Amino acid sequence: MKISFATLKNEFKRVLLKLSFTDEKAELCADIFAANSLDGVYSHGLNRFPFFVDYVKEKLIDIHAEPELIEKNGLTEIWDGHLGPGMYNATKAMDRAIGLAKSNGIGCVAMRNTNHWMRGGTYGWQAADAGCIGICFTNTTANMPPWGGKEPRLGNNPIVIAIPRDKGHIVLDMAMSQFSYGKLQENEINKKELSVSGGYDEDGNLTNNPSAIIQSRRALPIGFWKGSGLSFILDVLLTAVTGGQSTAQISSNMKESGVSQFFLSFHQDNFHHQLIEEIIQYTKSSAPAESGGRISYPGENTLATRHINELNGISVNTAIWSEVLKM
Amino acid sequence: MKISFATLKNEFKRVLLKLSFTDEKAELCADIFAANSLDGVYSHGLNRFPFFVDYVKEKLIDIHAEPELIEKNGLTEIWDGHLGPGMYNATKAMDRAIGLAKSNGIGCVAMRNTNHWMRGGTYGWQAADAGCIGICFTNTTANMPPWGGKEPRLGNNPIVIAIPRDKGHIVLDMAMSQFSYGKLQENEINKKELSVSGGYDEDGNLTNNPSAIIQSRRALPIGFWKGSGLSFILDVLLTAVTGGQSTAQISSNMKESGVSQFFLSFHQDNFHHQLIEEIIQYTKSSAPAESGGRISYPGENTLATRHINELNGISVNTAIWSEVLKM
Repeated sequence: MKISFATLKNEFKRVLLKLSFTDEKAELCADIFAANSLDGVYSHGLNRFPFFVDYVKEKLIDIHAEPELIEKNGLTEIWDGHLGPGMYNATKAMDRAIGLAKSNGIGCVAMRNTNHWMRGGTYGWQAADAGCIGICFTNTTANMPPWGGKEPRLGNNPIVIAIPRDKGHIVLDMAMSQFSYGKLQENEINKKELSVSGGYDEDGNLTNNPSAIIQSRRALPIGFWKGSGLSFILDVLLTAVTGGQSTAQISSNMKESGVSQFFLSFHQDNFHHQLIEEIIQYTKSSAPAESGGRISYPGENTLATRHINELNGISVNTAIWSEVLKM
Repeated sequence: MKISFATLKNEFKRVLLKLSFTDEKAELCADIFAANSLDGVYSHGLNRFPFFVDYVKEKLIDIHAEPELIEKNGLTEIWDGHLGPGMYNATKAMDRAIGLAKSNGIGCVAMRNTNHWMRGGTYGWQAADAGCIGICFTNTTANMPPWGGKEPRLGNNPIVIAIPRDKGHIVLDMAMSQFSYGKLQENEINKKELSVSGGYDEDGNLTNNPSAIIQSRRALPIGFWKGSGLSFILDVLLTAVTGGQSTAQISSNMKESGVSQFFLSFHQDNFHHQLIEEIIQYTKSSAPAESGGRISYPGENTLATRHINELNGISVNTAIWSEVLKM
């Protein structure tokens, strides 16, 4: 079943207004949920919407909260998200970082006590749309063992890096786990092996079997010890700067709430566009690993999906769509 | 054979002075080479020194060059390294970023036309020693295929993140390849399989065999498509900001020279030290993957090696050490 972006967004907005969101917040959050589905990130679009609504109903998200500037270290600003909607807070934070970058070349906003931002890439596209480089990352609840351990102690702590580009922004949006639990579950349901090892089984052997990883809770960080170290240090950085909750503290609650996030932006008149095109051409000039294969840059496939979904409508899970229609 | 830090450093300095380095540059470069060996990073300490000397003799490194501020975008500074010694330029750049951070909370120096900085971690420790958070990364010559390709088009582009800490800084220093070519060669010589897959063989199968990867030139990025994307976008970011050479351009020369680097620093009075200790304790509280195993934070093993080498002397490759003594 296919639905237009406008229909999807209007439905989300209707539900959020019914939950007493202000028009501004309902508009912004509905737009982001619909855009995530439009860009093919269904896991953080329609499919996540019912969970978001539950969080609002359980008051883990305070829909009335406004983010607040609580400290300035020179140009670096520390904000408190007061447990407001994560997408709203993150948009405001990146907007502020962009504003600072346009005045000062660089802008940095670190935020504590905020909530899940859904797709991190959203705020990368936001910066790039404003003509700025954007970098952001978040901590999360523990969902991955540290290297050398077998119990979850690290978040998958996604990081986003975005570079503005006329022919389509370059946007990397990646978590520190090789596969998300959402992806593991999807493969489990479809009885499909993972394309590469995604974790360890109960016996400590690397496996492509999603069920074995879900059972052992030993999802693999990207690059083994390397992703483990990167996930760890992003959490330390966030906590050191914001004084907010670390993965350790977030994980002490059953449901993820009150995370810490970082928003960095750079602006300059000339981002040397021609040199960026040369990098893309050079990278794509490698012989493909498999006959007929192609090499893409980060963000390229997202943009292609967006265009296809704009033309043909967005595929929706009919059960979840019906659920939202009844809300 | 074991040598003291002082002996190693004095010998390096003697050679550099003989090559007409100024006393300041000889002192700084000798100190960094010796400190790299002291910290157990022998590949970028003594073992690399003869290559550095060759680069100087071939005039790929201009020992008389001084880095120059060429552009300011607000607080972000663009410097030209004028092909000076990479370690000297990088130390100056991080020093400047630290200075800016101490005045403004954040400091950013982007540098083009510089040279190999040897161990990236050096500049992370430098920032942390100054009480600052330090982030830096560099591009390199192409040594890894992009995801979906089989010919090298990406650098391994190391990134460093350092957080100051009284009981020992937290310093992550990681390249985007699962293993460096140095490590592959070391395992090949010792006829040792890699601990995890490090690349593809000529038939396109993942392999732990270092020789097969050296032959195919298909070293693996960390996390497959993820490390490929991260390596790519770091190069784009560096090139977009500095206008310097990208991996594409660096790779057009046989020898790596004229790379681009980024130095970012944050300073604030209170980095919430107690919360950082909580993260370390929480991470280490995971049951070990293997009986008797231990979990370490990034930088922990470096510091332990440093202390052992300070006490017992630094292990040197006798052939390389003899070579240096004869220089």
